[in-house]
Amino acid sequence: MKEKIGIGIVGFGNLGKGAALAVQKSEDLELKAIFTRRDPGAFTGQAGGVPFFHVDQAEDFTGAIDVLILCGGSATDLPAQSPFFARRFNIVDSFDTHAKIPEHFDAVNKAALENDKTAAISIGWDPGLFSLNRMIAEAILPEGHEYTFWGRGVSQGHSEAIRRVPGVKDGVQYTIPVSSALDRVRAGETPRLTAGEKHIRDCYVVVEEGADKEKIAAEIRSMPHYFAGYETRVTFISENELKAKYSGMPHGGFVIRSGRTGKPGAEYNQVMEFSLKLQSNPQFTAGVLAAYARAVFRLNREGHYGAKTIFDIPPAYISMRSGDDLRRTLL
Amino acid sequence: MKEKIGIGIVGFGNLGKGAALAVQKSEDLELKAIFTRRDPGAFTGQAGGVPFFHVDQAEDFTGAIDVLILCGGSATDLPAQSPFFARRFNIVDSFDTHAKIPEHFDAVNKAALENDKTAAISIGWDPGLFSLNRMIAEAILPEGHEYTFWGRGVSQGHSEAIRRVPGVKDGVQYTIPVSSALDRVRAGETPRLTAGEKHIRDCYVVVEEGADKEKIAAEIRSMPHYFAGYETRVTFISENELKAKYSGMPHGGFVIRSGRTGKPGAEYNQVMEFSLKLQSNPQFTAGVLAAYARAVFRLNREGHYGAKTIFDIPPAYISMRSGDDLRRTLL
Repeated sequence: MKEKIGIGIVGFGNLGKGAALAVQKSEDLELKAIFTRRDPGAFTGQAGGVPFFHVDQAEDFTGAIDVLILCGGSATDLPAQSPFFARRFNIVDSFDTHAKIPEHFDAVNKAALENDKTAAISIGWDPGLFSLNRMIAEAILPEGHEYTFWGRGVSQGHSEAIRRVPGVKDGVQYTIPVSSALDRVRAGETPRLTAGEKHIRDCYVVVEEGADKEKIAAEIRSMPHYFAGYETRVTFISENELKAKYSGMPHGGFVIRSGRTGKPGAEYNQVMEFSLKLQSNPQFTAGVLAAYARAVFRLNREGHYGAKTIFDIPPAYISMRSGDDLRRTLL
Repeated sequence: MKEKIGIGIVGFGNLGKGAALAVQKSEDLELKAIFTRRDPGAFTGQAGGVPFFHVDQAEDFTGAIDVLILCGGSATDLPAQSPFFARRFNIVDSFDTHAKIPEHFDAVNKAALENDKTAAISIGWDPGLFSLNRMIAEAILPEGHEYTFWGRGVSQGHSEAIRRVPGVKDGVQYTIPVSSALDRVRAGETPRLTAGEKHIRDCYVVVEEGADKEKIAAEIRSMPHYFAGYETRVTFISENELKAKYSGMPHGGFVIRSGRTGKPGAEYNQVMEFSLKLQSNPQFTAGVLAAYARAVFRLNREGHYGAKTIFDIPPAYISMRSGDDLRRTLL
């Protein structure tokens, strides 16, 4: 029997829980330990009985763990954790602050290169699979326009923005693609569309007793960056209804490139589309992380050190199948 | 100014014409020559004035051409041409006889390895981008079902089958995905579907004068492998109507994986979909070949020899952008 790839997970929130499930379902991966900032004793028996440790103990496992999957947040966790752990382990992270990716890449790359480690950063679906599709579509259809639509799904950032409004007890925001805009792009048109023309912001809000609903709705709708410039729907519901109907974490979206080939007078529309419809955003993202953990292990064994993105990694490296098998069955 | 990648094209049918256009639109590629089995003099002035040569002269250009794009057919051209040229040039081909890919790979791999050349085989959209999406989706959602639907588009093989029926003067067959089947799969269902349950075969047929239309329609509908087992629609039209309305080469299709994550009692549907809607199948396929010619050049320069498939090639290699630029703009 082939030796399994030893995996560790840092962080046991929604993403970490999804990663544990994804790793345990992969025949060639073995979940060795989960590291948390909380009291590890509180998790005994969870995740199928895998041992939990405090994150400060992770360094003791450098021999047993081939790849560490980092499941912290991009705001404060990963900017520190990814370079720190990339000195000691091969890692995968889902760093998703688009504007800060270049500096994150540089920091992780330096740490990994100095220690012969391999680190896949910004793995997930956006950044991740959506980026990959944007890149491939641009390379194949250089004359064209690219459109990314998000949704239908919960935006954590917008949900938090609602919760900061005085008088709001709880709230969830669903991002919904505007179907008429989606249809135009799919039909091969190349309209200029603002984010507000592509998306509806659908808010479900629970207010505190006696709160002024009209004022709250107006305040949400006019919030700069988050809601102003969008069609924003505000529905007030009870706390129970919010829990019963809106506690899931669905998400998804569409990457469409509408391109053109040929020559003047004989041009052809060519439309490429990639889409996701996810009932659980964190579990799907975790599935991407687990597949790329496999790739990181192989890259490192072959001497490919440093930071990598989804653009740099040969797709075959994420598959359990051999090259022969891939050519025979999936090509 | 950076030196351009020198490209040659073998074959000047629909695919070769598309490849010439795609190469000439890429800033970093330069079309040096087109090789044909026909009289090269007959093409003077075509393809923007690029020089045409007889295919037997191609060997004289080993110094000037970095990558040769082979645009012949899979039945008889490529099985001979790809290994032959892979001894002399880096090549890209679109070999698409799925069942024979393993032996084609082996033959090309041997030829290329013995001569320090790099050869990308079976590049296009199926095999090609569809294969890539099947592979990535399986790796990320190991528990799930994969569905490939083709169409709406012209199937050359089925059109030729129609034309072989006695009394038929000309004919075109459109493959159309069954929308109710597509909707079930997109909704996260995992039905078992035969090719006939996924596709409608829509035939436009021109008959010779006095031919028995009913007999022809019956003969088409009952043809084994091609039409039997499918909903087959036969419409008789005039030669002029066929030329006016049905002479294009549109195609496309859908690769959908309907997967499941989570654990018993708390499972989630996760649907990944990739689709193409192409007004010109050969021009799009040619765009894929041109992008992978860029990748082949880079792989060879870095010492990666032998045959490669779309699974083996780091996606970034097909893009004109640098790694920095990709991370900044598309990740």
